[in-house]
Amino acid sequence: MEQITGRERIYKGRVVTLDILSVTLPDGVQSKREVVQHPGAVAIVALDDEQNVILVRQYRIAAAQYMVEIPAGTLEPDEPPALCAERELQEEAGYKPGKLESMGGMYVAPGYTTEYIHLFLARDLTASDLPADDDEFIDVVKMPLASALAQIDSGEIDDGKTVAGILRAARRLNR
Amino acid sequence: MEQITGRERIYKGRVVTLDILSVTLPDGVQSKREVVQHPGAVAIVALDDEQNVILVRQYRIAAAQYMVEIPAGTLEPDEPPALCAERELQEEAGYKPGKLESMGGMYVAPGYTTEYIHLFLARDLTASDLPADDDEFIDVVKMPLASALAQIDSGEIDDGKTVAGILRAARRLNR
Repeated sequence: MEQITGRERIYKGRVVTLDILSVTLPDGVQSKREVVQHPGAVAIVALDDEQNVILVRQYRIAAAQYMVEIPAGTLEPDEPPALCAERELQEEAGYKPGKLESMGGMYVAPGYTTEYIHLFLARDLTASDLPADDDEFIDVVKMPLASALAQIDSGEIDDGKTVAGILRAARRLNR
Repeated sequence: MEQITGRERIYKGRVVTLDILSVTLPDGVQSKREVVQHPGAVAIVALDDEQNVILVRQYRIAAAQYMVEIPAGTLEPDEPPALCAERELQEEAGYKPGKLESMGGMYVAPGYTTEYIHLFLARDLTASDLPADDDEFIDVVKMPLASALAQIDSGEIDDGKTVAGILRAARRLNR
């Protein structure tokens, strides 16, 4: 356990807020912790009736490359995660889920960020009439679940939430 | 694709460095991106001869709780990932791997951090004589791989690299 004894806010941004926490370690020593405060997010493993998984491809400047990921997005203040998941799946991928199950979630990097991603499994998809976000440059990529699993095994799909989300969904579906 | 046209360094820390990038979007619009610069890391799925997986339990202030994770650590400048993995497995868990295989890796949160984790599968473990890091308060937890998989399915284990790493290793071992 570490006791927080002070907090210095370095930066408050659109996605990321950076705090330096002063802490007391279990042995009484004083130390500092750099913590990125993040509002949390959702990510959705969406499967159509033919066992295709709906993925999105976009440029990620932090990775300096295009990446293929499951649809995801940041929680709005006080937004219930399931509503956020429905919204993001429509905005990013153009699908509305008839059935949305929680798979719990995960901390993406608990060593320095508070971000927790709520994971969902979406099925019974229908085309959404909600307009896409106009500030996002995203391509929808549909591929058989078996191909996505092969690309995870090979390392070609290498986004953490996508690897964890699809592998958890596959176990749930006994594949 | 996004072109970087400027970079403002907000903070340079021990683990985390925060930059605000000025970018030109595909449609020519100017925008900003908050990017956490991270040196990269390794994480190790270590299995003993009885198919137990070696985990570590430590307090994570960003998650405000104790968490069970696979051993992991940040790369030193110019450190080869495999050497870092050997070092961290010894420092954190007290085991030396006789056999260390790369499983590729993953971006933990490519929306805002450059952190890439190199994943390894370690086997043929022997007790290490390297002293443990004295600034880390870590307990080693050994559990059957089947139990770890059950705790991932239930959401009890909810660290991203741990979920992704163990599920990838289990597929590799056909479990």
